[in-house]
Amino acid sequence: MSQWTKHDLLDLEDLSKDELELILTTAKSFREVSSRDVKKVPALRGKTVVMLFFEPSTRTRISFELAAKRLSADTLNVAASSSSLSKGETILDTAKNIEAMNVDAIIVRHSCAGIPKVLADNLGPSIINAGDGCRAHPTQALLDIFTMKDKKGRIEGLNVGIVGDILHSRVARCNITALNKLGANVTVCGPSTLMPVGVEKLGVQVSYDVDDVISKSDCLMLLRIQKERQEDKFLPSIREYAKKFGINKERLKKAKKDLLIMHPGPTNRGVELTADVADGEQSVILEQVTNGIAVRMAVLFLLLGTKEE
Amino acid sequence: MSQWTKHDLLDLEDLSKDELELILTTAKSFREVSSRDVKKVPALRGKTVVMLFFEPSTRTRISFELAAKRLSADTLNVAASSSSLSKGETILDTAKNIEAMNVDAIIVRHSCAGIPKVLADNLGPSIINAGDGCRAHPTQALLDIFTMKDKKGRIEGLNVGIVGDILHSRVARCNITALNKLGANVTVCGPSTLMPVGVEKLGVQVSYDVDDVISKSDCLMLLRIQKERQEDKFLPSIREYAKKFGINKERLKKAKKDLLIMHPGPTNRGVELTADVADGEQSVILEQVTNGIAVRMAVLFLLLGTKEE
Amino acid sequence: MSQWTKHDLLDLEDLSKDELELILTTAKSFREVSSRDVKKVPALRGKTVVMLFFEPSTRTRISFELAAKRLSADTLNVAASSSSLSKGETILDTAKNIEAMNVDAIIVRHSCAGIPKVLADNLGPSIINAGDGCRAHPTQALLDIFTMKDKKGRIEGLNVGIVGDILHSRVARCNITALNKLGANVTVCGPSTLMPVGVEKLGVQVSYDVDDVISKSDCLMLLRIQKERQEDKFLPSIREYAKKFGINKERLKKAKKDLLIMHPGPTNRGVELTADVADGEQSVILEQVTNGIAVRMAVLFLLLGTKEE
Repeated sequence: MSQWTKHDLLDLEDLSKDELELILTTAKSFREVSSRDVKKVPALRGKTVVMLFFEPSTRTRISFELAAKRLSADTLNVAASSSSLSKGETILDTAKNIEAMNVDAIIVRHSCAGIPKVLADNLGPSIINAGDGCRAHPTQALLDIFTMKDKKGRIEGLNVGIVGDILHSRVARCNITALNKLGANVTVCGPSTLMPVGVEKLGVQVSYDVDDVISKSDCLMLLRIQKERQEDKFLPSIREYAKKFGINKERLKKAKKDLLIMHPGPTNRGVELTADVADGEQSVILEQVTNGIAVRMAVLFLLLGTKEE
Repeated sequence: MSQWTKHDLLDLEDLSKDELELILTTAKSFREVSSRDVKKVPALRGKTVVMLFFEPSTRTRISFELAAKRLSADTLNVAASSSSLSKGETILDTAKNIEAMNVDAIIVRHSCAGIPKVLADNLGPSIINAGDGCRAHPTQALLDIFTMKDKKGRIEGLNVGIVGDILHSRVARCNITALNKLGANVTVCGPSTLMPVGVEKLGVQVSYDVDDVISKSDCLMLLRIQKERQEDKFLPSIREYAKKFGINKERLKKAKKDLLIMHPGPTNRGVELTADVADGEQSVILEQVTNGIAVRMAVLFLLLGTKEE
Repeated sequence: MSQWTKHDLLDLEDLSKDELELILTTAKSFREVSSRDVKKVPALRGKTVVMLFFEPSTRTRISFELAAKRLSADTLNVAASSSSLSKGETILDTAKNIEAMNVDAIIVRHSCAGIPKVLADNLGPSIINAGDGCRAHPTQALLDIFTMKDKKGRIEGLNVGIVGDILHSRVARCNITALNKLGANVTVCGPSTLMPVGVEKLGVQVSYDVDDVISKSDCLMLLRIQKERQEDKFLPSIREYAKKFGINKERLKKAKKDLLIMHPGPTNRGVELTADVADGEQSVILEQVTNGIAVRMAVLFLLLGTKEE
């Protein structure tokens, strides 16, 4: 098996097919840890993992925090609002101060694309991107792909539909990148106002007909519709979106029996999908959450684990 | 001794006399842990305990957090304000996501009565009610009763007076339920506007004369007066309340020498009781806080401890 | 070597020269821990350390929190905004409740000078002052002095210049006290409106000419200029301050080659110093941050470590 050599996790673009598969394999072995009675291994004892979040995010933050704790690392939360930033310090100053405390990893979320890269270029600790603007959210895409592979046994040749606000979605971008490397066929679907110009160049097919996408997909990934898009005039109305692109039981009649319904959460029930679909037997939304811990344990372990182990 | 079989702690109504006594006995053995030089036992190593608080509460939150840490569990704080709820997710969605992270217990506080029950009905992890609206606050009542038993050697036959806003108090309700099961005689006392209609049916005596209650009680539990009650017209004035029901040294002359003065905190000095009474030798208010950790360790241990231990 | 006997750390005034040196020596041995692969020692396992912060402070808080965690203590954050204080409880009530939970140390920051002393006078756990108003910030001064000694090999006879808002600085006051005890020569420098009346009585020289101070110093400690001082009329303008007292490459031409540039952070680049000076080779600003963890580990260990160790 390939050896892990990367120092940071910024974007899935930077990873080879072998590296992606190494993360997925490592995650598989860690998933078992969280189902034990004693959910803890000593792999990262004495390591310090900092969550530096400039945007609030309960789910991603607690998923990383639990992943680090189950590896026995020490964790520290730094929320931007309570940080020195309000005193006029730059982000890099803040991060350099955290680095000076001999931390091993900084998990960063920021509304501006590129901030994790700036930190990685300037700092010694491993930087893990937990979402930067519309650019990337690599651990989300990894947990999505882990879930697909876990359920379908493979990624190669899978037909994956991604439905929603493709334009603003770091989750879509990251998934497209990695799914392409792993040999899946990706179709993106959504209102034309929310479709990036030239999206075909990313190696995907484009459709504006969700029913067609449903009928040919093995996995259907629904993206969260931000209510703000309506105010920004990207969407005529949320209601209109739900009618045209929302997934309901009726629409699923045309789907394969074993279609996977996925969503990065939090869901807007009644918008991207109806409640009965979200809770239905094709939905793997909560399994995605469970797998998120395993994937993040794998990433932390590969980046920080000692060579001898 | 009876075996513990319950999966959640929602209300003391649900517990038998034997179960209540098992908690008190278990708490006694844990109280010793917090007085050691090394205040930690490995009982819940590798378990994950989440504090999901929809209302702020420093005391109860840190008491549970310390209890969990002294049992070596991993702890995680989720405050409602920073959670996905602001993104329109339902409480049950939030809780199901937390469940999907393979947590062992969710300690929940919410301003609406019944939310812990809804979570317990729908989720796998143990749910511990840390206060829901005016309904219940079981660990508060347990620590009150633990303190009474610790000081008096018994609960059977004790005369317990509860003074204050009986109508809105989850602490009063929970104490009445458990004290009745354990054989104490409870008298409630307060302004008629703050007395529930038909309160006698709970198996208590009712008095509007605090001096009479003082003279016959072994334990006097004072409830916190919420300043908002005055605005809500439940009380003519806080000053009037203090004059009619506030406990001071003068009033205590009619009390038994070994009367226990109790309060769940935080106290309004000069309202429910004067400062000299709060700090006097009959007051066990701070011992209640100390015992709170022991009782919460016992609850966590009984709910999550492995069968073999 | 002298034995440690103090129970609290409130101000460096209270410590003898021997005690100051014992902290510095102990810190030296702990600095090594943070550079290990496994940054953790079991010295304070089972101890409980509470951070009770009434003013926000990311740097100081996370430095203490990491110090405690690397000593294996359990840590607990209590921020004033989420505490019972908003319910009208006094600070002493809050602290007594925390004490009742059998905690070992309370690290307190408050905007009013003297609060840590009040807590120490009334409570059993060790109180560590993490900054009280304009009075003291002992661990900051200790890490400054640790850094000087580490770089210069001695404190005795060093010429230390302190530049900025001497009037409002707890960091300046604490450093002056300790540097005098350890035999350094301190010169304070700043606008006359920010210089305390009678400051010479503290055993320092006073200068209003920063170039003169630069030329004769071994260590130059720059204090943060609070933007509010301009509104308060203490300063004509921030720009004027930067021109007269700000440190830049030009000014440093008159300095000794091995002058140390220090700052407690967060820096206002372009005000107290230019970016090239902050990042230049004479700057030890980030080493101060690193040493802060070692000094705080030493303080926690001396106050809480068991006698046998």
